[in-house]
This record gives sequence, C-alpha cells and structure tokens, in this order.
Amino acid sequence: MLLAWTFALPALAEDGYDLWLRYKPLPEAQARQYRELGAELVAPVQTPTQQAARDELVRGLGGLLGREPAQAAAVRRNGALVVGTPASVPQLASLQGDLEGLGEEGYLIREARIDGRKATVVAANSDVGALYGSFHLLRLVQSGEPLAGVDVRESPRVKLRVLNHWDNLDRYVERGYAGESIWDWHRLPDWLDPRYTDYARANASIGINGTVLNNVNTSAQALTPLYLEKTAALASVFRAYGIKVYLSARFSAPIEIGGLATADPLDPAVRQWWKDKADEIYRTIPDFGGFLVKANSEGQPGPQDYGRNHADGANMLAEALAPHGGIVMWRAFVYSHEEPDDRAKQAYTEFVPHDGVFADNVLVQVKNGAIDFQPREPFHPLFGAMPRTPLMMEFQITKEYLGFATHLVYLGPMYEEVLRADTHARGPGSTVAKIIDGSLESHALTGMAGVANIGVDRNWSGSHFDQANWYVYGRMAWDPHASAEEIARDWARMTFSTDPAVVEPVVSMMMGSHQAVVDYMTPLGLHHLMGRGHHYGPGPWVEGGPRADWTSVYYHRADARGIGFDRSATGSNAVAQYAPPVAEQFGSIDTVPEDFLLWFHHVPWDHRMASGRSLWDELVSRYGRGVDYVRGMRRTWSTLEGKVDQERHHQVAVFLGIQEKEAQWWRDASVAYFQTFSRRPLPAGEAEPPHDVEYYKSLQFPFAPGDGK
Amino acid sequence: MLLAWTFALPALAEDGYDLWLRYKPLPEAQARQYRELGAELVAPVQTPTQQAARDELVRGLGGLLGREPAQAAAVRRNGALVVGTPASVPQLASLQGDLEGLGEEGYLIREARIDGRKATVVAANSDVGALYGSFHLLRLVQSGEPLAGVDVRESPRVKLRVLNHWDNLDRYVERGYAGESIWDWHRLPDWLDPRYTDYARANASIGINGTVLNNVNTSAQALTPLYLEKTAALASVFRAYGIKVYLSARFSAPIEIGGLATADPLDPAVRQWWKDKADEIYRTIPDFGGFLVKANSEGQPGPQDYGRNHADGANMLAEALAPHGGIVMWRAFVYSHEEPDDRAKQAYTEFVPHDGVFADNVLVQVKNGAIDFQPREPFHPLFGAMPRTPLMMEFQITKEYLGFATHLVYLGPMYEEVLRADTHARGPGSTVAKIIDGSLESHALTGMAGVANIGVDRNWSGSHFDQANWYVYGRMAWDPHASAEEIARDWARMTFSTDPAVVEPVVSMMMGSHQAVVDYMTPLGLHHLMGRGHHYGPGPWVEGGPRADWTSVYYHRADARGIGFDRSATGSNAVAQYAPPVAEQFGSIDTVPEDFLLWFHHVPWDHRMASGRSLWDELVSRYGRGVDYVRGMRRTWSTLEGKVDQERHHQVAVFLGIQEKEAQWWRDASVAYFQTFSRRPLPAGEAEPPHDVEYYKSLQFPFAPGDGK
Repeated sequence: MLLAWTFALPALAEDGYDLWLRYKPLPEAQARQYRELGAELVAPVQTPTQQAARDELVRGLGGLLGREPAQAAAVRRNGALVVGTPASVPQLASLQGDLEGLGEEGYLIREARIDGRKATVVAANSDVGALYGSFHLLRLVQSGEPLAGVDVRESPRVKLRVLNHWDNLDRYVERGYAGESIWDWHRLPDWLDPRYTDYARANASIGINGTVLNNVNTSAQALTPLYLEKTAALASVFRAYGIKVYLSARFSAPIEIGGLATADPLDPAVRQWWKDKADEIYRTIPDFGGFLVKANSEGQPGPQDYGRNHADGANMLAEALAPHGGIVMWRAFVYSHEEPDDRAKQAYTEFVPHDGVFADNVLVQVKNGAIDFQPREPFHPLFGAMPRTPLMMEFQITKEYLGFATHLVYLGPMYEEVLRADTHARGPGSTVAKIIDGSLESHALTGMAGVANIGVDRNWSGSHFDQANWYVYGRMAWDPHASAEEIARDWARMTFSTDPAVVEPVVSMMMGSHQAVVDYMTPLGLHHLMGRGHHYGPGPWVEGGPRADWTSVYYHRADARGIGFDRSATGSNAVAQYAPPVAEQFGSIDTVPEDFLLWFHHVPWDHRMASGRSLWDELVSRYGRGVDYVRGMRRTWSTLEGKVDQERHHQVAVFLGIQEKEAQWWRDASVAYFQTFSRRPLPAGEAEPPHDVEYYKSLQFPFAPGDGK
Repeated sequence: MLLAWTFALPALAEDGYDLWLRYKPLPEAQARQYRELGAELVAPVQTPTQQAARDELVRGLGGLLGREPAQAAAVRRNGALVVGTPASVPQLASLQGDLEGLGEEGYLIREARIDGRKATVVAANSDVGALYGSFHLLRLVQSGEPLAGVDVRESPRVKLRVLNHWDNLDRYVERGYAGESIWDWHRLPDWLDPRYTDYARANASIGINGTVLNNVNTSAQALTPLYLEKTAALASVFRAYGIKVYLSARFSAPIEIGGLATADPLDPAVRQWWKDKADEIYRTIPDFGGFLVKANSEGQPGPQDYGRNHADGANMLAEALAPHGGIVMWRAFVYSHEEPDDRAKQAYTEFVPHDGVFADNVLVQVKNGAIDFQPREPFHPLFGAMPRTPLMMEFQITKEYLGFATHLVYLGPMYEEVLRADTHARGPGSTVAKIIDGSLESHALTGMAGVANIGVDRNWSGSHFDQANWYVYGRMAWDPHASAEEIARDWARMTFSTDPAVVEPVVSMMMGSHQAVVDYMTPLGLHHLMGRGHHYGPGPWVEGGPRADWTSVYYHRADARGIGFDRSATGSNAVAQYAPPVAEQFGSIDTVPEDFLLWFHHVPWDHRMASGRSLWDELVSRYGRGVDYVRGMRRTWSTLEGKVDQERHHQVAVFLGIQEKEAQWWRDASVAYFQTFSRRPLPAGEAEPPHDVEYYKSLQFPFAPGDGK
C-alpha cells in the first residue's frame, strides 16, 4: 500500500482520454516516410463538417509528424494532401467517375496527379465522406502504414450505425461501469462540454452516425420541450460529425406528458399526439433521427397493454416520423407477463407473425442474443426468420455480464462469431452479417446498435482495454464482415504503440480473452449464472423471486444426472426456431458445437466429450483454463512494462490482478456449487475450492455498480 | 451553436484538474528572484510523509522555475533549501528552540545560516509540519512573494480540520454538483486511483487533516469488513499527507449488521458491539479518526428512539473509541418528530441541557446555521451556549442553496461573517471564531467540518470558482480568524495568474458574490424559499407536504400586512437563545441588522428602511441589485479574455451567463409572487416580471442534481 504515494502523477500523463486518437509523435523511422505528406494541405472549410475534417488533420498530422501541415487554397506543389468533394475542391472534379458507387458516406484515398502535381487525395461525394476518409488517412499514418501506392475505397455496408446510451436523465447509467452519463442535462443547453465534441470525433473516426441519448427504460420527460431543447444543443455539436441524435420514446408518453387517458396505438387522439410531438421535435431538431422503443418488456408499457401488437405500436410511431424522414427502431427483446416455457423462444414467437407488416421506416432491433447479452449465446433465431423486415443487430458494448469494466475482455471475436454464424435462411452462406447488411434480402434500410460503455470516467470506458470494444463495435457496424483481429491490431497500434513487440502481444491477449471469460464464467453453453440484480460475480445458486426465468437454476438445471437446458425436441424445442440444417445441428447432442452443448441439451455428467474427458471433468477443466488465460495475460502484460507509458501500464496491471482474483472466484464458486450435484471428485491436478458453497453464497455486494434502478 | 465544433481542444488544455497547485512557469521577471532557491534541496525521504514533501517541492519548483532542484544530503553551498525536522535533518538541530510552541503541525520558514552557508529553511517538529511548510513555501513562490527576509511561523488554531463527504456507497453524492463520488468503492481496495493522491495533496496544501468518507445519511454497510478493507486502502494513501479517515456511523448498525434486536445506547450488548466494532476498525486502520453521527434527524435512527438523549448516544460511541484515541463528532442538526413552533430553536433546546455531560472525546458539530445552510443565516445560537462542550463548526462547501456549481459564489465572506460574529457569551469580543478555536473556553479539542463540494468532475468541484470554496474552507479551518479577501487573493494568484490585472478583478468579483446571491435569492433575512426537494430555483410558493417546516410559506409568512418570521418576543422568541446583548439587538426591529430583518421580524410592507425606501421597494431593489452584480461580473470577466487560458475562461463565461439567467429568474419569480401579497406597484425603473406567478410555479425540474435520494 505504501506504493500509493509514488503515483502523484502530473495531470498530463497518458490517462486514456485521447482514446485511439492520441496523435503522439511517430518514431522517426516511421515518420520519415510521411515527410512529404501535408507539405501542403488543401482542405476547404466552408461548412462545419469540412472544418471538422481539417481541424482533425491539422491536429493529427501536427501531432504525429511534429509539425502542422501548411494550408493552401489549391494544389501548387508536389506532396499536397487534398481533402474534399468535387463541389468543395474543384481540382477533384476529375475524380467524379471514381466516386460513383461510394454513396453519401464513402470515400477514396489514393495518390493522384492534380494539375500535374503529385498529391494524396481523400475524396468523397459528401463532406462527411471526406471526414471519414480523413480519419482513415490518419489511422494509416498512426499505424505507420506506407502511403506509397495507397488505394482505398470504402463505404459503409450498414446504413444506421448507432450507439444506444442506457443513460437516465439523472445521469445514472444502467449497466454503466464508467461513471455517470456524459450528458450534463442540468447545464444543457447552455454549457456544451468540450467532451461532447471529443465524443463526436471518436465516433466519426469509426463511422458511427447515430446516437440514442437516453435509456430504453426511459422517462417520458425526455420528450418534453425542456429536454428537446437540451437534445437540440447536443445535436448542434454532433451534426458536423455526421451524427444524428435519436431518443428512446416511452410508449405511454401520451398519458404521462400528454394528458391523454390512453396510449392505445389505434386511438386517433394518441396517433395525433405522436404526430404533433414529431412535428415539434423536427421543428427543434430538423435532422432528428427517430425513436428507439422498448415496449412490453420488463415492465415497460407497450401496445399489448391495449390488446394491440408490436407492429401496431411501431407503425403508429413510424407514421408520425415518416413525413420527416425519421425511423423507428423497435426492440424485439420482450417478455410476456406469463412465464414462457423457455424465454429464449419468446422474441421469435411474438415477432415472426408480424413479418412484412411493419412500416417501411421501421427496423426491428434484435438483441444478441435471445436470453440477454450472455458471455456467449448462439445467434438469435430471429435472424433469418423475418425476411421481409429489416433487422438490426443490438450488441452490448458495456460488459454487463463480462466482468464489468475491470476485466480485459475484447468483444471483437464475440461479435465476429455471431456475424459469421450461418442461419441457412437462404441456404448455406446466409450469414447473420448478410442479414444485418441487407444483402441477403435486399433491404436498403439497415442498422446496427451498440449499447455504449461510455461514461464520464477520464478514459471514457472505465478501462483502457474497454475502449477497444467501442472501437470494434464501430468498425463492425461499418463492415459486419470485418476481421476482429485486424481491428484489434489497428486499435492496439493507435492506442499503445506501433512497435510490433507491443502490438502482437496485446492483440494476442485480446483475441483469446473472450473465450477466457466464457470459460471462467459460463463454459460449454451455460448461461445466466451471475449474481442477482447487479450481475456481479457468480450466482449459480440464485433461485426464487418474482420469476423463474430471472434465476440461475432455471437455466442450468443441474441435477444428479447432469446439467443443461434441454432446448432440443425432447425439451422446449427452441431449436425448431432455426432453419432446418441449423436446427438439426444444434438439436443433436452429437453434432451441437461443444460451446453450445449445455445451451441446447441437458447432458449427463459422464457424457464423453471431444477431449475424451467426461462432461464433469471437462467443465472443471474449462473453468481452470479461463483462469489460466488471465494469469497468462498478466505475465504477457508485465513484459510490456516500459514499452507502454507507466500510467496506463499500471492501471491495466492492477485490473488484470483484479480479473485474476475474480476469475478464480467464479471458478471456485461454480465448481463448489456444481459439485453438490455431480458428486464427483475433481479431475487430477485441479485444486479444491478454498471455501464451501455456503461461503460463496454469503457474499453480498449491495452497491455493485450498474444495477438497473 | 455552431461555435461548438471549434472547441475540440487538446486534452492537455487547462481543465482545472490541477486546482491551485498548477505550478506553471512563473513569468521570467518573477522567477528571477528565486534563481537561488533550490540550487540544492536538502529534504530526506526516510518516511512517506518526507517523500510527499520532497515530491511536491520537486514538482512545484521544477514547474514554477523551469528546472528541478538538485538534491543533496546536506547543505554544501549557499542557496540551499532545507526541509525537515531536527530529527530528519541534523543540520536543523540549532532551530530546536525556535520550533517550540509550533506543536505537531506547525512550521517555520525563514532564512538561516546552516554550517555557515545561506539557506532557506522549512522546519517543523514533525514530518507533516514540514509538509505543510513545503506547501506554504510553494504558495509564496506561486504568488511571486519575495523570499528575502522571509519569516513565517504558522501553526493551526483548530485541531480537527475535516471534510465531510456526503457520498453514498453507490457513489451518489447527496447535494453534490460535481459528479459522482471520487471513491470508487467497487474497485477498492485493489485499485488506488491516482486521484486519491491528488486529493490528499490538495487537502494537505491547505491543512485539512481529516476526511469523513461517507454520507451522514449512511448505510450501516460502511462498517462491514468489506468496506473497512476499502477504507483502509484509502487511509493508506492519505496517511502520508497527514489525513486521517473517519466514517459516518449509522446509529442502528448493531441491528442492521450486528444482528442485535436493539441499538439502545444503554444496552450492554449494544455497547459491547460498538467496542468490538471499534477494536475491529483499529486493527484494520490503526490511525482511524473516529465517527461522525447524524442521529434523530430527518428520519435517521438515534438514541431518542429508545428514550435516551444525545449525550447517551454520543458517549456510548466515545467509550468504544476512547481506548484507541478516536473521537465522536455528534451533529446538532436535529429534528423532532413533532413540528416545533420554530425549527430554528430546536438544536438549542435539545442540546443545551446536556452541556458538560458529553465525554471528553466528543465534539458537537453545529451546522451553520440553525435552519440549514441558507444563503445567509445569523450565527447559530448554540455558539456561546454550551461552554463546557467543544463545538465544531459545520460549514457547507457544496452550494446546495447557493446556485449549485454553476453560480459564481465565493463563500469566504460568508464564513468570515459568521466566524467574526460576536456571541457576547463572555462579554464583547466573544466571537464564534474564539469558540471554534477553543480559546474562549479553553478547550484543547477543537474542530471544523466542511461538507465537501468534490466529485469526479475533471475540475473536482463542478466549476473553476468553486475550487475557491474548498480552498477557503481549508484555510479558515486552519485559522478561523483569517481574512476571506486575502485568501481569495492567494487563491486567484495560484489558480489563474500572478498578474494583478487578473488577480484584482477576480478578487473583486469574488468578494461581492455572496452578497449578490443573497440579494437575488433571499434578501433581507428571507430564507428557505427554494424549489422543493432538489432546491433548484425559486419556490417561495412551496406549501403542503409532510411538514410545515419543510415549506417556504412557513418561513416567509407573507400576507397583506407584511413579510417575515417573527422570532422576537412577540413571536417564537428564538432571539432569547442568544446572549442578552445579541438578543436585544436582534429582537428589535429598530436595531436588527437589515440583513436579518425578515429572519427575526414580521415587517409591514411600508416599513421605512435605512435607505428611506419602503420595505417593499427595498425588497424589489435588493433582488435587482443581485442580478446587476452578476451582470457586472460578466462584464469584468469578459475583460480578462486572453489573460486567462481559453478553456477555463470560456467555461466561466458560459456559467456566468447561466447565473445571470437564473438570477433573473429568481428575481422575477420572487417579485411576481410577493407582489400578490404586497399588492403594491414596483418601484420606478423596476421591470415587471415577464410572466405571472402561475408560469413560474409550473416549471418542473424532476432530474435536478443532488436531490437527497
């Protein structure tokens, strides 16, 4: 503990605030290749978005290369960097043909001759495309990538790339582990925190183009004039960065703030109220994005309260927004009041019948996955089952079930696994990614949502490595077919160092970290075993309370014979919600991937696994493997001391220590508990848990963060 | 709004994190005089506190003078800076005599010859004294004060100089306007945020030597082993800086976490439980400070629940802590269950009978003032009324009733006014300050508490100017006789600039700002007129609810005849709680200071004021004067553009804009409301409020920050 007083660091140390946009000077060996770049910067500033692009290039190149680029109105010498659209930079008119097909948000980066002079060009059809291209160019330089012969053509494969903030109006963030909401509602609209601009920069740098400011569990107050004025102020900051604001809409708002007696979506007065509200919003925020709605789920009001269905509710809002170009993101994460035989089946059951009925400006937002945001879930059966409805993916970036902000868990591999999963909806190759990007069913309206991990913590995400999850979410929303590993490498280079002796160990730690957390929390398809309410730490013994499907015992079903939830034909038959080839694979204990074994089957303790071990031995071994991986990350990280700045290195090292302790706790508590069912000895070499189950049950964490209030 | 995107400032701009310890390079003209200073630094580092002092001097002088001092084991040349105690630096042994009378925390700074060489000496009897002296020396350099002939002798006049954090264990801060609690309980004890060290540095720099970590409205969980381990980790950081940790103790903890059936302070099992708890705490934290207790107030449990009195409760805890040297700070801010005829009288009524009965290690902590922390209250009648009991002052630093963190209100003049108030308890000159410092009644145990305004906001206090309130609190706790203006000047020099063209306008703004907020919120002795619950904005119309003494109408008592609370002999006779000369002065409408007129009297609207105006005209004029002052601050501040860094200048300017808007709102709403009683026209030249009373009443702020949850 005495060490504490040696950390009186200057405030200017690397505290993570700059995210992946650090722009620290490149090593001279790398900087040399860019000597020409930005000898002359031609980037007009006729619009706020153009200004944002030029500001970023000046800041970025100035930081990376040690001098700010000289600015010019037109190319006059070799080595210029030219950024803009044919409209903003007439010298780019010759690229008009090459820009076709890049759409409103795409861009190209290439070497070109402009009026006979050699130049590097970032060109696009719109200002925001040029802004995205500028960030891409900066990423190349940050990563030390050669620009000689550069030829990048990029455009997003998904139209709406949206963050969902589960932020309450009192600044509490549900499932937030990075401090309060960054939205300082009380001092808006007057005080525009500079952080809002940095938030917009970070998002634009990875292509995020929308943000839902308030929690899906929202108060109707968010739609009152007081809050619309505040929302408009935020929109005024974000607009230059191509980011639209959206609001979560409480379905019963017509009652709560409208004074109506009902919120029935077929009631003419209710419909009129929403139309008037939409008109009012668009008068305040002309480019407002639209509504996100959580209805008839976990106690939220919704159309079913009036005997209507989800399509009735969504279409009413869609009708109000349509004249203004707004859209509705209607969540498919629903609960019925009665407990179903299997909660995993419910979204499919409620939504599939309405396929084709939703209005054109409605997307159905599907949580990954069907139970919640578990460490690992099979892809959601709705993907592939609603061909006539655009489905958004809802990923959780904040780590509600994955160790909060303390554990180092890179979510890229998890996102990738799900996006690459094959639904077989239109035969082999019908991946989830192709449903999200609209290509499988030719939807033009497409989207991806990520539940943000952002708060006022100085490093934004509560830990340095959790910044990577914000980053990879944005990159995968832009391109759901992208590689988690390549993105991790980009991030590590920008965030820590271009030195491969840093990048490769860091990427290696990251890439195995998701499997590790699955192993030490919920291996082999187990799920929903965490502490009640706050979801902190192991709670496989959780039972009782208002609903069986909020308990752990409902999901693991351990008994003397075995463990696992039978979702095959002999059980809840949830497998039947998948296309036949998938249903067949998942439905048989012999073909189901072991990662999902206990998700779909109740399996005898002595079941022989691929390893040759019994299920019980394999289960215990997986728990240990997870803990071992964390130990390995600690060792790897310790070798990077001195190669990463001291402040960030120290924090990551301490957090890895916490992670190891908590991983061991998960393993010990889970093994001790499940052993009361298996009644089998631990495999040779596996340590007995240091306490009995009662000890682990007795631990209480009444103030663990993020609990939904 | 378009301006927003121009504020993409580098993260390294002046964001206020460094408080008054910025250590930016001095202007060359000022730096020149210190050229010799620290040519050689003799400051041993045998203990953590010595290390803290040397680290600070290296950081501070290095920053201010542009080069780090060269370190040496002993004085070998002219110009050395020598820091330590006779024990730590043998060359200081000759100062032994001069150190007498400075006590454990005092220090001296002077020029001296050490082994024949010229040196500047910071000497003390203890390491922490030397640390305090080091901060004082740095302040002199920061302020550009000449060191030639320096001769400082300082020791604190108050023994316990304590911050009270009203921080809940879930990180919510009651009446906090600077973000969440800086205590990251979830990641303690493992993660020791570097901010904890900077917090300790800031406190040590102004002499604060204790901190109560948790809210007076506390959960008993704070006393469980889980939280004691976390508290111990914080103590390990603070110890080097001379800061002890204290905890708020929930009186019913023996029931809630002890499993007992009662918390009766005379029950032997309860007494034993507290003794065992104290033993447990001191095993974990050997230098634990003690308990702060809010009992039988606003619903908190306490000894009266068992028919016992405050002394019974306090003495039980004192008995448990005494063997370990711990103390009890027992709050006198109490409510009885029955509504009293005048809430202002209650603390006196309940506590005076127990004078002389409290144990030796108990202090009674008296809120400033008797109603709450109103913008202006007369000094609390308990001061002077309990000569045999050490009374602590409880100031509120956080601005619950003074515009939250947005309004620029320097509290120094308010503290000064109260501390200099004459209780006449032992004849003229019996100031509150002399009661607090123990000199009036020869108490050795003395203390002052400040309810902290600290949170995770980057600038700690929610605004740059609110840092001054933390600062002045610490300085006045060290010396209750100090001058608010001199402290403001020190703060402004350290925080903004040594340029008198900055310092003097800033000090001038600050010095009038308290009178201004009184004027635009609650002039002439009015009080308790704010919005219900959150206390944001005007609410003079607040009535109804559970208790009359939680409403505004109870306090202002406006009617057709006049306005004000009659606390004279014809009313509640609260004046009788003061010593006779004070009671006489306050008791007569002719002698009471006009600042307290409506606090003590119900006064006819046509009462002739010192200005010659009627009360009504004077009241309206005072409201306007407050708004005008804010307008003047905006003008003054705008002249400092370019003389203060852009980032801080911009935020202060925006906040002053909000303050002006809200000051106008207070004025307009209050004038409109009181006019419904006075039924008199506004004085000539005063603008009619732009809305009627119903409009102001209709405004709702359900998510205003800081509301007690």
